[in-house]
Amino acid sequence: MTNERLIYLPLGGAGEIGMNCYVYGYGRPGKERLIVVDLGVTFPDMETTPGVDLILPDVTWLAERADRIEAIFITHAHEDHVGALGHLWPRLRAPIHTRRFTGRIASLKFEEHGHPRDVINIVGARPDTVEAGPFKVQFVPVSHSIPESSALIIDTPAGRIFHSGDFKLDHNPVVGEPFNPEEAARIGAEGVKVLLCDSTNVFSLHPGRSESSLPEALTELVAGARGMVVATTFASNVARLQTLADAAVANGRSVCLLGRAMKRMVTAAVETGVLTNFPSTVSPEEAAQIPRENLMLIVTGSQGERRAASAQLSRGKYLGLSLKEGDLFLFSSKTIPGNESGVIRIMNAFSEMGVDVVDDTGGKYHVSGHANRPDLERIHELIRPQILLPMHGEHRHLREHVKLAMTRGITSQIVSNGMMVDLTGDAPKVVEHIETGRIYLDGSVQVGALDGVIRDRLRLAMNGHVMITLIVDEDDEILGEPWAETLGLAETGRTGAPLTETLETELNSFLVRADDRVIADDDKLDDAIRRIVRQVCMEEIGKKPEVSVVVSRLMD
Amino acid sequence: MTNERLIYLPLGGAGEIGMNCYVYGYGRPGKERLIVVDLGVTFPDMETTPGVDLILPDVTWLAERADRIEAIFITHAHEDHVGALGHLWPRLRAPIHTRRFTGRIASLKFEEHGHPRDVINIVGARPDTVEAGPFKVQFVPVSHSIPESSALIIDTPAGRIFHSGDFKLDHNPVVGEPFNPEEAARIGAEGVKVLLCDSTNVFSLHPGRSESSLPEALTELVAGARGMVVATTFASNVARLQTLADAAVANGRSVCLLGRAMKRMVTAAVETGVLTNFPSTVSPEEAAQIPRENLMLIVTGSQGERRAASAQLSRGKYLGLSLKEGDLFLFSSKTIPGNESGVIRIMNAFSEMGVDVVDDTGGKYHVSGHANRPDLERIHELIRPQILLPMHGEHRHLREHVKLAMTRGITSQIVSNGMMVDLTGDAPKVVEHIETGRIYLDGSVQVGALDGVIRDRLRLAMNGHVMITLIVDEDDEILGEPWAETLGLAETGRTGAPLTETLETELNSFLVRADDRVIADDDKLDDAIRRIVRQVCMEEIGKKPEVSVVVSRLMD
Repeated sequence: MTNERLIYLPLGGAGEIGMNCYVYGYGRPGKERLIVVDLGVTFPDMETTPGVDLILPDVTWLAERADRIEAIFITHAHEDHVGALGHLWPRLRAPIHTRRFTGRIASLKFEEHGHPRDVINIVGARPDTVEAGPFKVQFVPVSHSIPESSALIIDTPAGRIFHSGDFKLDHNPVVGEPFNPEEAARIGAEGVKVLLCDSTNVFSLHPGRSESSLPEALTELVAGARGMVVATTFASNVARLQTLADAAVANGRSVCLLGRAMKRMVTAAVETGVLTNFPSTVSPEEAAQIPRENLMLIVTGSQGERRAASAQLSRGKYLGLSLKEGDLFLFSSKTIPGNESGVIRIMNAFSEMGVDVVDDTGGKYHVSGHANRPDLERIHELIRPQILLPMHGEHRHLREHVKLAMTRGITSQIVSNGMMVDLTGDAPKVVEHIETGRIYLDGSVQVGALDGVIRDRLRLAMNGHVMITLIVDEDDEILGEPWAETLGLAETGRTGAPLTETLETELNSFLVRADDRVIADDDKLDDAIRRIVRQVCMEEIGKKPEVSVVVSRLMD
Repeated sequence: MTNERLIYLPLGGAGEIGMNCYVYGYGRPGKERLIVVDLGVTFPDMETTPGVDLILPDVTWLAERADRIEAIFITHAHEDHVGALGHLWPRLRAPIHTRRFTGRIASLKFEEHGHPRDVINIVGARPDTVEAGPFKVQFVPVSHSIPESSALIIDTPAGRIFHSGDFKLDHNPVVGEPFNPEEAARIGAEGVKVLLCDSTNVFSLHPGRSESSLPEALTELVAGARGMVVATTFASNVARLQTLADAAVANGRSVCLLGRAMKRMVTAAVETGVLTNFPSTVSPEEAAQIPRENLMLIVTGSQGERRAASAQLSRGKYLGLSLKEGDLFLFSSKTIPGNESGVIRIMNAFSEMGVDVVDDTGGKYHVSGHANRPDLERIHELIRPQILLPMHGEHRHLREHVKLAMTRGITSQIVSNGMMVDLTGDAPKVVEHIETGRIYLDGSVQVGALDGVIRDRLRLAMNGHVMITLIVDEDDEILGEPWAETLGLAETGRTGAPLTETLETELNSFLVRADDRVIADDDKLDDAIRRIVRQVCMEEIGKKPEVSVVVSRLMD
């Protein structure tokens, strides 16, 4: 019994914002029974992962120990917490526990993937308790930017863990449960050994603002609008949808939802009883018949996503609706770093139409879903943990959060993806480094981040591609002449001649002079051709392209 | 005489931040004598222009009228104003006029390109005047974030133009000339017909802050540092380099400059007499011998550029210098939208080394070089133009600036790239739309933005590449079997077999069944192969790749 231990192992989310996946274990070393908290994704970009559809945490370590997994807990329905569930569950196959709204979203994913939905168990808030091997787990309602977000109380033989999930301190979140400081203090008073804590906003110095600070400004903004009002926010921010819809109704406007995610979220929220007062909405066809001063569209695409409703509207007519001079477009959202270009592209497109674009520059039309620095300090005080381990942050956020905890005398250290720590004693102890990483969902297959597939795509994008084909006959003689094709390269070079012709001429003059032993040897021939291609391209266009060489050898 | 006219035509910078190039003309329609103000570049990104080195304005319209160009004026030495001069001058071949510091930077570019440096004329500040055909042009010192930035007074037979250049209202800019409200009022009182005005910060609601507001906070920050201090900012922000170096010296630290641009700018500033009190610096070799608490590095790479000194240091040792726990890294800069990912990557790399990273989140360590909204209003008041045309901004900035001017009763309208307006009358009148656009410098050649070269690269990056080669003999029979290669695609598909094998098998089974007329017809064969490749890839990996087909036909 004495050599049983409590371990913590982040596989995603500790060293990045996104792709959350945290593992806890209890038992004899190497035999611990495990639980998983969250299975999220992160999103690709052109700069590092062109063409990739989704990025998943590498759960190989977990999959190899699937028989030891007691349960999977999902804290809330944001994609960075639940998005990988459908993709990875078949490798883990443990029962899933979550609250009602999150469960509904998870079920929709399971349906798409054809997984059995009955492994998803709906759990009520504390004091309801899930027993999972040595763990007793309770869902503690917290305020965030999606309904029924939860922290987890994880009671273990080695003490209590408070896993914060994503949270903010909102006393009046419009939809869902407010922050309850008495409850938090009570949990703290019962004794918390380790606080695993959201770190996203540790650099935001002012106390976070409540969702309920928005309705007044939003209603005023809509009241002042002459034409159609179009607002975008994250579809999952159901409270914001309510706030926006209320502002519309208060100004005699009908509400129309655009975008698949928007409708899915509102439906899920209504069906699970989270949303009880949402006004009735009109379809796009109906909306097109309503005078624009009596209409508000609430649309997807707050991050500038090219296929979402915002971008579609910025390019012209979408589902029979279009914006024009005198209309108002509101970003009731924050632009996530990396998405600026897409958002700015949309803003300028609307500007060209004469549409007034309003964003959150003045801080009046959006509030964050995460605890800011003073809010984190408040939680530290209420929960009073012996140990604080920051999570949900890039390295710089984790580091700052550790510093913050230590100034308050709390034992703290950075535990990033792949570090397994023993939490049995008074201080965390690193016991192992697990190989972790990222898996790319690319089309319908999964490729490893280090497989070289995406590296090749980036090289093609940077350098362009030259393809050389060549036929060698049975006597190791070149048949005809080499053939060059290019893709993604200037057609003509410095000399003014077509690049492919220059390449073919140079290769031909090499081949007629080349030693028979070079022609006969695949590797030598390949090397020589590549060298010539790169050299010609460097001289002609100042670039070193990717080169593919196909030598077809005719057989007797 | 009565049918002479004054025209304005932006070829870059009006509809984007970057690539500034503005044309003015005076004379009979179609015979106007022309002057060009600024010839700048903008920068590529992975999302839209992978592999591209620089983006230049398309000056075809100007080049076709080179005999009508009287002169080129450069307002200041930022790359978005002078960066295209070396690349485009050979097509324009007009004399260049600029102040001393800008001229030095321009000369360095001409030297690299092998252009004659004697076409660059150095002009003093107002009242010095350049006569260029019907234009009389004076350089008016303005404060900005680079030395000797200037507005231009352009006197024409149809009235005075005040071309603001990039500016802010700084009464104490540390280096260079302060903002002089009396001078601005005097120019206004002399009568200004058209104000062409910087629009970059029109959405910034607070008055801009002076460079001189920084030394105190910076000195305090450096005083509190235990280890080495490394600061990054734009190399061209010579005043900031002075402020940073002063903070170092005040704390007994030696200064070492890292990065080519850093040394080039300081040298140019010293040689042209702009910088008179810069402390002596130490070389990287000397710096490596100095105790870290007595050292400050001032380095390039504030925008996260992968090859600049900041990024190099974030990856480890650079020129014998490296950062470690207890050092401080300061971004004395703002991250330009689109550059966030690169900057954040560096921040996290330093965080992993235990380095404290400080940025401008609190607004203490950086000030902007552009006039904010209240400053713009001040300039409108002082210059009192009859017409205001906003420039140097995306469409949304231009639109907002027009609105701002109109609330003050100033005639204003959006004139974006390619719109030629007649300014002879009381209000601007659009007289022509010129085809404009972007030219990509790609390696050593220029390719048009619409040539399809970059579109192909983006497709390769998104979709990967399949290459099929096939030999058809003299009798239109397939010789051997088709050969498939892939680049940037998963090696194996759903079936578990190598993708290239599946492709070859499917192509082969098509070819043995195929109609002779298909085999004999290049286009039909090509189409059929592409269709099969896309279909197989869709089934196997859920992607539709780019496909290249090379059919070699043996001749008798």
